[in-house]
Amino acid sequence: MIYLNNDTICAVSTPQGRGGIAVIRVSGPQALDIVQQRWQGMPLTGMKTHTVHLGQLLDSKGEILDQVILTIYRTPNSFTGEDVVELACHGSTWIQQQVIQTLIDTGCRHATAGEFTRRAFANGRMDLSQAEAVADVIEAQSRAAHHVAMSQMRGRYSDELKGLRDKLLHFTALMELELDFSEEDVTFADRGEVTALARDIHALISRLADSYRDGNAIRNGVPVAIVGQTNAGKSTLLNALLRDDRALVSDIHGTTRDTIEDTVVMGGTLFRFIDTAGIRQSSDTVERMGIERTWQAIDKSNIVLWVVDVTSADTSMIHDILDRCEGKRLIAVLNKTDLDDDVAARSELSDLLPEGTPVVAISAKSEADVEALRSLIVETVALPEVDSDAVFVTNARHYQALTHARDAIARAIDGLDSGLSGDLLDQDIRECLHWLGEITGEITTDNILGEIFAHFCIGK
Amino acid sequence: MIYLNNDTICAVSTPQGRGGIAVIRVSGPQALDIVQQRWQGMPLTGMKTHTVHLGQLLDSKGEILDQVILTIYRTPNSFTGEDVVELACHGSTWIQQQVIQTLIDTGCRHATAGEFTRRAFANGRMDLSQAEAVADVIEAQSRAAHHVAMSQMRGRYSDELKGLRDKLLHFTALMELELDFSEEDVTFADRGEVTALARDIHALISRLADSYRDGNAIRNGVPVAIVGQTNAGKSTLLNALLRDDRALVSDIHGTTRDTIEDTVVMGGTLFRFIDTAGIRQSSDTVERMGIERTWQAIDKSNIVLWVVDVTSADTSMIHDILDRCEGKRLIAVLNKTDLDDDVAARSELSDLLPEGTPVVAISAKSEADVEALRSLIVETVALPEVDSDAVFVTNARHYQALTHARDAIARAIDGLDSGLSGDLLDQDIRECLHWLGEITGEITTDNILGEIFAHFCIGK
Repeated sequence: MIYLNNDTICAVSTPQGRGGIAVIRVSGPQALDIVQQRWQGMPLTGMKTHTVHLGQLLDSKGEILDQVILTIYRTPNSFTGEDVVELACHGSTWIQQQVIQTLIDTGCRHATAGEFTRRAFANGRMDLSQAEAVADVIEAQSRAAHHVAMSQMRGRYSDELKGLRDKLLHFTALMELELDFSEEDVTFADRGEVTALARDIHALISRLADSYRDGNAIRNGVPVAIVGQTNAGKSTLLNALLRDDRALVSDIHGTTRDTIEDTVVMGGTLFRFIDTAGIRQSSDTVERMGIERTWQAIDKSNIVLWVVDVTSADTSMIHDILDRCEGKRLIAVLNKTDLDDDVAARSELSDLLPEGTPVVAISAKSEADVEALRSLIVETVALPEVDSDAVFVTNARHYQALTHARDAIARAIDGLDSGLSGDLLDQDIRECLHWLGEITGEITTDNILGEIFAHFCIGK
Repeated sequence: MIYLNNDTICAVSTPQGRGGIAVIRVSGPQALDIVQQRWQGMPLTGMKTHTVHLGQLLDSKGEILDQVILTIYRTPNSFTGEDVVELACHGSTWIQQQVIQTLIDTGCRHATAGEFTRRAFANGRMDLSQAEAVADVIEAQSRAAHHVAMSQMRGRYSDELKGLRDKLLHFTALMELELDFSEEDVTFADRGEVTALARDIHALISRLADSYRDGNAIRNGVPVAIVGQTNAGKSTLLNALLRDDRALVSDIHGTTRDTIEDTVVMGGTLFRFIDTAGIRQSSDTVERMGIERTWQAIDKSNIVLWVVDVTSADTSMIHDILDRCEGKRLIAVLNKTDLDDDVAARSELSDLLPEGTPVVAISAKSEADVEALRSLIVETVALPEVDSDAVFVTNARHYQALTHARDAIARAIDGLDSGLSGDLLDQDIRECLHWLGEITGEITTDNILGEIFAHFCIGK
């Protein structure tokens, strides 16, 4: 990978808008020179790294733009590894615009999204999985998501990958040793040791790959499908569930017009509720397409809330739904108890469901017992405890690479079992190393990097 | 004024929302102790003032909350004059909330709006007019408003007030000298010198007070009323005028339902356009109230755009409008040239207007010649050049105090002219000093301070 950093970039690193202060970051070989040209205060050449200085920033015409606090970080001891100057100015949008304009007029280029972090990666300050975690840290909405991202950013995940890599290199060393002696028609002294090593590697990769299910739920929210017949009160239930935590709600309109997703933090866990089209027997083509999407929503979910209107208690589709929910955690929700608190319906419904399926009677409209449902959902999810050293794979790109790596090591194990020659096994191991290298960024392309950093915010 | 600073305050100082980084400010006698309790890194006691340090911030349970950059400012060399610690954390809203929560759990109080600046004032780091300018700097939307606020924040205005104060103290010294000799029935040696001094003071105060007209226009926008008969295209014109600079537009709905204000920067100057109810003869009570508000809008404006529909060219109300516009800069706008480009109407209209009143023919709808009108408005306003040392009074509170101070010094001059005794003159001078002291905050009350700082943002 060739990546040139010979220009100097700048951007506002603090959130958009007006505030008490805003921080503008300048990074690159000319950072000190460029800022010096607009600086009235102690000369930058005399400043020690990691010190702050009060002074005035001038515009291109030499007029005072603002009183600023300047922080200097000298290469390589900065976030990017380059010379970095941070300017804390007054947080008016006008000043922020003017400072950026002045820096650009003086020779900076405006940074692209994630470019500071990309430079930190390019300059070896962090590997790619750590760089990706920077964006995750900024986007984390729950304690668990935050801890997983922090752990990844601090290198816990990289450490595990490094351990794997060392084992794989040891494996190839053993294979090469065998190759060196192959002329002498001596097969490997102890293939048992190599096989044990391969199985160990397979187990480690599997554990990481398998952590993606929980990791994805932690980072992107535990998917919960709300399904049921038309007019069962699904959307009212969605609103009732979200009510308490409105501040953290975001609307994600699906690509399909008929499922709506909303995220909310409950009991410290992020949930992603998927409201679906009502299910009923229908000959209407469009409606059947909507129902097909409901089935897909169930497939994507960990938990399914099956909402039944207690006033009609129509369970005619129950077998279709139960078939589709196999392997999911199902919760039956008997809704509209404000209209009809029919206890009999509850036990009738229970009889139709698999043993142990919880049934909760609520009124989504009056919010009666919605809190109980909320607690049940939180209990049901049963995500593992997450602390700030926890390692979970949260990234689809990593999961894909790990799956490929697992396939490669599995092939190597098969090869060992069937007495394949060392040079053929070596190919599988090198492929395995390749996939792990894609995660940490040792092996990558500008396209992949572009794709990754495009999702960052400007200024990070 | 008694103002206790024995607690330690914290707040997010950067704009609200998510970004690359966010800065949390902690100020007060316990700032170092409190942060130290949650800090994993070099001990704060060993840090020099104005240095930055990478470390980890822990939550109340001892789990890592974030990797942060800590900046330390030791008393008295900080913004507030107190010990200050600034924590630059990752800019997720979750982290920001958690850091604040942790600091509060550890003994901080959440800062009220403007409390850091209020402490800077209370600790003598700046006077009150400078503190007020901090908020103005943050809110400035145009170059001129920014320069005036910066100049005030940097103490140029305070310097002028200090000069005035010195002159007034010199005056009182002369008066007291006279009083000391009054028993001996000796009147003042040279009342001419004192009178000259008083006139000098009066001129200086007048100049400051008179600068409020331009200063207010610079800070709050030059008021421009858009008036005309119903359906002349006033609202379309407003939209057309705002179009180019939409990004800087803010909607200020008036207290009255029928005038709408919008601000926009044109040619570096902030304008505040006031769209008004159409004027016509009416017996309807509600409509007449709306028209009354239109007359009030004209009274408040520096510039009046009188919009005439060229297709009807109804000038029946022209004399009412012209009477009301005396002293204002009037621009006649012949609208709807896309429907009827009636050159004759233009010259007929000109004949009705005072000599030299500009007439511009436009189409607000197609935006034809709106640019020409925009340029004309910018030329018409004729605000003085403003650089970063310019002193303008921009604050209604200051203007009021200066008016009182001017009245007091005027009474002293009258007293000198009529040979009033020194002790009576001294009263006027002391009153004059009192009003100037209210501007700089030497004389003030908690109520006034509360009112002033309530308009600040949190974190500043």
